Amino acid sequence: MATIKDIAARAGVTATTVSRVINNRGYISEATRKKVSDAMKEMHYQPNEAARSLSRRHTNTIGVIVPHIIHPFFNKLISNLERAASARGYKILLCNSQDQPEKEAEYLDMCISNKVSGIVLCSKYVQTEKSHSLHIPVISFEREEENSSAVTIQCDNYQGGKIAANHLIEQGCKKLLHFGGVRGKDMPADRRADGFIEACREKGVQGTIMVSNQLVYGSMHYQEYIQEGLEKFPDVDGIFASSDLIAAQVIQICNQMGIHIPEKIKLVGFDDVLIASVTTPTITTIHQPIKEMSELSVDYIDRLQKNEVVPSRTSMPVWLVKRDSTL
Amino acid sequence: MATIKDIAARAGVTATTVSRVINNRGYISEATRKKVSDAMKEMHYQPNEAARSLSRRHTNTIGVIVPHIIHPFFNKLISNLERAASARGYKILLCNSQDQPEKEAEYLDMCISNKVSGIVLCSKYVQTEKSHSLHIPVISFEREEENSSAVTIQCDNYQGGKIAANHLIEQGCKKLLHFGGVRGKDMPADRRADGFIEACREKGVQGTIMVSNQLVYGSMHYQEYIQEGLEKFPDVDGIFASSDLIAAQVIQICNQMGIHIPEKIKLVGFDDVLIASVTTPTITTIHQPIKEMSELSVDYIDRLQKNEVVPSRTSMPVWLVKRDSTL
Repeated sequence: MATIKDIAARAGVTATTVSRVINNRGYISEATRKKVSDAMKEMHYQPNEAARSLSRRHTNTIGVIVPHIIHPFFNKLISNLERAASARGYKILLCNSQDQPEKEAEYLDMCISNKVSGIVLCSKYVQTEKSHSLHIPVISFEREEENSSAVTIQCDNYQGGKIAANHLIEQGCKKLLHFGGVRGKDMPADRRADGFIEACREKGVQGTIMVSNQLVYGSMHYQEYIQEGLEKFPDVDGIFASSDLIAAQVIQICNQMGIHIPEKIKLVGFDDVLIASVTTPTITTIHQPIKEMSELSVDYIDRLQKNEVVPSRTSMPVWLVKRDSTL
Repeated sequence: MATIKDIAARAGVTATTVSRVINNRGYISEATRKKVSDAMKEMHYQPNEAARSLSRRHTNTIGVIVPHIIHPFFNKLISNLERAASARGYKILLCNSQDQPEKEAEYLDMCISNKVSGIVLCSKYVQTEKSHSLHIPVISFEREEENSSAVTIQCDNYQGGKIAANHLIEQGCKKLLHFGGVRGKDMPADRRADGFIEACREKGVQGTIMVSNQLVYGSMHYQEYIQEGLEKFPDVDGIFASSDLIAAQVIQICNQMGIHIPEKIKLVGFDDVLIASVTTPTITTIHQPIKEMSELSVDYIDRLQKNEVVPSRTSMPVWLVKRDSTL
């Protein structure tokens, strides 16, 4: 690999001049700048970021730790985080914890060793004290934080649940069922069920909650759990699924059982990911502003790096996107 | 942040001993090792990977450049690459080129500056001579490579197209239509159309190909293009879509036009991604061994780093996964 000395020799200037051009420091004539940059191109010179990082506190990298890369929600999040990060000159170090506490802890350590500028943490188990003590900003994304110095970004899950139930009730549904939540995991997403129940109570409509287990969440295949719910509550006419992925599988099971959507049962999902617009029928859903939440995550990391003060808890609004499943 | 000297002072040993423990070099008694590792834990010590990287040729990082993170195929690929990389001690630097030549070139440079151990390149435009001249292994994933020193990994797209057409013909279809391929992009995926046409020719069955434009590919919304095809060829009874994402949208448009799948039209997709098992009906598809292709990519990078010889072209088998859309 060409070094600064090699470039200097080729361009007929000193190594100091080459260094000045690379780091954009001090006065350099246009002619000299061109000579150096031509030599760099000819010799395929790339500044060594690992070396440059040593003189900086961090590496312009954001560690992203998710439980499942392949889950449509995290997929959309990763895509938006990459775009927001790239626009601000950050790179993404991607970590898939597979929803395992040990892997999450390991990846958190790996991010710290790699001097990341910040971490977006979308998992449940890991304690973040260590990164706080090292002054590495951690954004807790859609997870609860007991740690008082943590910065959390969530959407308004409670309102989302209310909006979903109210929409089903407005469409004439009398007996509502909610698929979602994972038993034993206290996740912000559980607030969706709370909002759902509260709306049912306010309107005097029957509302039931089916809770899945960890195993079902991990596999992303909810078919048995959905079938169990529909068999247990055969007179249900409105379903609120806590993700579009679950909603797509509600369509499948209803189809197998000869139940028409939206004629017999109306259906609302959550997230507004790609899947909601490619199913048949398309899925009415609660839109999470993932793009804006991603941009805020990167912005907060950027500002925390500059020792600026950012909100410790940020909640973003959600809204209804009407499609064919509640027509 | 704690330094090696701080750890040494806390553990009551020399800095050299601490360094030996960290780098696992030379003889260290178990008691000493424990003293040092306890001190490291107490002081939240993390080895500085940026500094360690300087003494190595590369950073144990694999750059992954995809055109669309959110596309179900690349989503599954990223998830599998992350898992394969992590199992071999590599990290993933994730780059989304948004299918733009300038962004692809920029990300390739960024990977080189960051001394990645290798690059998995899933995009079309970028020339890879530069990384080759710098001895950075590049795996061209499902893309053509004119560069003779390139290493490409593909699935057997031609066979995939043949298997899809033959299955439709066996299921009784007489007039086949293929949705797929992007006009003006010479992609390995185009071989699916070639295999499809060849199977139709062999069996004496009518086979037609609809080609989409770049804009449609970029948006991932194929509805208009599919509707145009179905209106142009109203007597079609078998469809082969070149991705499960397109196949899901074929189901939507057929549903809108009152065409039943699989009764009136039978449908085969390609990829075998999550979406194929959550649509209604579920999609019969050609399985790409993405897991194995991901593991090979990481393995080749690992072996190229050690100057071992690896195959320059690797083609993996594909197979049919039968679901409800061709029942």
